[in-house]
Amino acid sequence: MREDRRSASREDLSDAWPRYTAASLGLRNYWYPVMWSRHLRKKPRAVILCGERIVLVRDRGTAYALHDRCPHRGIPLSQGRCHFPGLITCAYHGWCYDVRTGELAAALTDGPDSPIVGKQSVRVGTYPVAERAGLIWVYVGEEPAPPVEADVPTELLRPDTVVVGVIQRRRGNWRYAAENGVDEGHAKYLHRRTPWTFFREVPAWNIIHLGPSDDGEWQLRIPDHTRSADTYPRVGRWPRRRHFWESRSRGPLDVGARLPGWVRVRRQNWSAYEAYVPSDETHYLSVLFLAKWTAGPDAWLFRAWYWLWRRWAYHWRFNAQDQRMVESMQTPPERLYRPDVSITAWRKMCQTEARGSG
Amino acid sequence: MREDRRSASREDLSDAWPRYTAASLGLRNYWYPVMWSRHLRKKPRAVILCGERIVLVRDRGTAYALHDRCPHRGIPLSQGRCHFPGLITCAYHGWCYDVRTGELAAALTDGPDSPIVGKQSVRVGTYPVAERAGLIWVYVGEEPAPPVEADVPTELLRPDTVVVGVIQRRRGNWRYAAENGVDEGHAKYLHRRTPWTFFREVPAWNIIHLGPSDDGEWQLRIPDHTRSADTYPRVGRWPRRRHFWESRSRGPLDVGARLPGWVRVRRQNWSAYEAYVPSDETHYLSVLFLAKWTAGPDAWLFRAWYWLWRRWAYHWRFNAQDQRMVESMQTPPERLYRPDVSITAWRKMCQTEARGSG
Amino acid sequence: MREDRRSASREDLSDAWPRYTAASLGLRNYWYPVMWSRHLRKKPRAVILCGERIVLVRDRGTAYALHDRCPHRGIPLSQGRCHFPGLITCAYHGWCYDVRTGELAAALTDGPDSPIVGKQSVRVGTYPVAERAGLIWVYVGEEPAPPVEADVPTELLRPDTVVVGVIQRRRGNWRYAAENGVDEGHAKYLHRRTPWTFFREVPAWNIIHLGPSDDGEWQLRIPDHTRSADTYPRVGRWPRRRHFWESRSRGPLDVGARLPGWVRVRRQNWSAYEAYVPSDETHYLSVLFLAKWTAGPDAWLFRAWYWLWRRWAYHWRFNAQDQRMVESMQTPPERLYRPDVSITAWRKMCQTEARGSG
Repeated sequence: MREDRRSASREDLSDAWPRYTAASLGLRNYWYPVMWSRHLRKKPRAVILCGERIVLVRDRGTAYALHDRCPHRGIPLSQGRCHFPGLITCAYHGWCYDVRTGELAAALTDGPDSPIVGKQSVRVGTYPVAERAGLIWVYVGEEPAPPVEADVPTELLRPDTVVVGVIQRRRGNWRYAAENGVDEGHAKYLHRRTPWTFFREVPAWNIIHLGPSDDGEWQLRIPDHTRSADTYPRVGRWPRRRHFWESRSRGPLDVGARLPGWVRVRRQNWSAYEAYVPSDETHYLSVLFLAKWTAGPDAWLFRAWYWLWRRWAYHWRFNAQDQRMVESMQTPPERLYRPDVSITAWRKMCQTEARGSG
Repeated sequence: MREDRRSASREDLSDAWPRYTAASLGLRNYWYPVMWSRHLRKKPRAVILCGERIVLVRDRGTAYALHDRCPHRGIPLSQGRCHFPGLITCAYHGWCYDVRTGELAAALTDGPDSPIVGKQSVRVGTYPVAERAGLIWVYVGEEPAPPVEADVPTELLRPDTVVVGVIQRRRGNWRYAAENGVDEGHAKYLHRRTPWTFFREVPAWNIIHLGPSDDGEWQLRIPDHTRSADTYPRVGRWPRRRHFWESRSRGPLDVGARLPGWVRVRRQNWSAYEAYVPSDETHYLSVLFLAKWTAGPDAWLFRAWYWLWRRWAYHWRFNAQDQRMVESMQTPPERLYRPDVSITAWRKMCQTEARGSG
Repeated sequence: MREDRRSASREDLSDAWPRYTAASLGLRNYWYPVMWSRHLRKKPRAVILCGERIVLVRDRGTAYALHDRCPHRGIPLSQGRCHFPGLITCAYHGWCYDVRTGELAAALTDGPDSPIVGKQSVRVGTYPVAERAGLIWVYVGEEPAPPVEADVPTELLRPDTVVVGVIQRRRGNWRYAAENGVDEGHAKYLHRRTPWTFFREVPAWNIIHLGPSDDGEWQLRIPDHTRSADTYPRVGRWPRRRHFWESRSRGPLDVGARLPGWVRVRRQNWSAYEAYVPSDETHYLSVLFLAKWTAGPDAWLFRAWYWLWRRWAYHWRFNAQDQRMVESMQTPPERLYRPDVSITAWRKMCQTEARGSG
């Protein structure tokens, strides 16, 4: 099997995984989290998802998404306002679109009898939108949208889910970010020196295989063999020492991946989620959050612990090391090694199991 | 006629107005205002007009324009100086060009007998220049230049003309800016909320047709029908209220357009001018000014009123709304509506009446 | 001969000097100075030379250069560290390369028995490196590297050489910078007004021819005729006056050029060197330094004089005038004149004498 993997890695990526290679703007026909629910108020908000310019608005409590371009003169609707119930008005000439259907409901500067109102040729495209777990989810694709529950990790649908995190638009194609997220090998070297791992023992190396989670939702990385330190030819002992303040590893992390670009790390009583959401060819949305299933004072403790420590140490400092790699990674060509079975499995999942163009 | 306009708008712009579509660097064979006369002193000034790099200098009171490139090694002459009467000297090797003819008059670092002096192969191109109404006008084109008076709005030639304004290089192709300038529809929505219109009643909508001005110089937008407020399906009353501080409209504005990129708004005893001057493909010169025909204390009052209020409210805040549209407009495709007869007429004028390529 | 030069200058540059025209990334098969020896410590340093990304490291006193790209996932090795003697470790997954051979010596996160270690397919390219005259020299090319002494100006190999200077990455192709460096004509006009020449008399013009230095290493510009001032038609007297504080010229400067991009100006007891080192198509390394052959207190005086005066006046202000030309020069086309014999000779030397592609 090692032989297989090695020869596969020598092939050009585009031959091995043509569909994945072509997906520079992301996998379509999925629901993606794009912003925090609480950040969407009356003011329209622009987002680029899978290469499509989308404007999000909230109308009487409900979120809507439309193509972010007025067909008249090409001004982004996100520069406009929501003056009238159920309508978004373009900033330029006051064309008002129905946020539900995208139909032109009025052209203020052309009078009540404007002949262009209601014409199909000036209808704006709309997108399915949902709100779950404090996030706004948008569906992009040609196939009919499945229920949003199909794409939200199941446990996040529980009503006692407490979610805290950070969403940023970042430089780099989503696949570099997703591959870094599913990558087994790098944490044990790249993240060895950062505040988040200061009090933890980071193992030297391990061997893994991949297998499905109990509920079938995630592809887990299952360690076969882990060494906290070892002696290498040419190198000697690595890591060179174990500090007394590094707590012994509490057993292997439960790390899983799922389409269309998710990574989950389960801890004892909370989980960390990473969604690598395609924006344009050179940017992705980094959606990073933690979830705990609790309420009352424990929920507030969880939030405090996040804002006082984890946000800085985990979502900022730890993640900045990953982002530096995403921005400087230059593949192909590449030459994979044993722990990259996690990357190869991810590509294969995108190639064979992603929705659409079945 | 509506039918015609609607079907025309569905065609590709390049089919309907091929000459206009091709004019990304502007209409040639015209005089254009490019800077304030008082800003051109001894120091050479660079300007890009219709894609051509031009250096302006003032020699003993007279303005001259040359191609802004030394034929020797390609250094812009605008980096040089005017040491000697009638000459501009390149900063690099001291080649001195006659500002009238562009001829190489001396090559300082090659001695008085330099064999290259006077050679036609090192002659720099020159441009016709004139000064009118406090502005420097430059002619770009292949046809012989007409008198500058042909391209300066007639009333600006009067000796009692007082001119105040602002000239800026801005992002965007000149056609987006010019189309925004001639556009009938947007003012009634886009400019509804800005200090300039705070004390004025802005109508809800109107219907116009186009016709020539009495002197034939301008193509005027003539309102057939204006409503200060109205009731729309889906929207209701618009504008929603009229504030007591909004003065009643003093009748429709007298707004006209002329080639190669002018808009004029006549007021009771002063006028506003906008010239959208082509620079390169992605920039234009925004030449905005007001003129009044007066002298003495009234002229000073006009200047004071400009610097204290109109410059900020009209040439800055009001115009920034337009510039925001110019920078975010993305056409084609486009889908025109009734008030866009002003844009269509403008394009037709460029297509059929512009000089050159007759 | 004048006739020849003039007709040659009318031809397209690419016809006259095809090899020089093609060398946008520099002349290969040479040793180039790229950084100060004292600036290379344990931390890896990145440099781009002749379009190649190179990482420099110092291991137990010796400098090494490798291709700055980990074959695994394309991360620059210059982001990594030197933990272990003789190895550079990639920041991402801890792959350790032998700095001498580029061989993969360990893959920390894959354990001591990692099957990829030692594979030829993950070997990183290496470059010959040397240290002379306080500088790090790197060889780029396909031919076997000659001894570094072949490319270091001989006098800089003396053990009593004291070197002071400044190395910067600058905008512009190396050829524009080199041509400016070898150019005879511009100093007498461009550098007339700068602190460095304030106390010196700058001649008006001269006529030169080119000839080899005694040791054959340099192509010298030999003045036939120099005039400190003269009277020109159309211009009159130039320079217009000589100030009493300008010292008489101490005779012509001894200026020479050599491949692959060197200029040397010899003074009485010190020399100035300029190396225009190709980086990428739009940047070069400007390596400017002064050398004196001395020791003890005189060496410290030389250093003090450099840091207090020459660095600011010569390597900063004087050179900024050149850099301004390099950044705004636009050739071809060009139209050479008599003093440009220095440029033509330089191009011919590159065309006919440069190593490689014999």
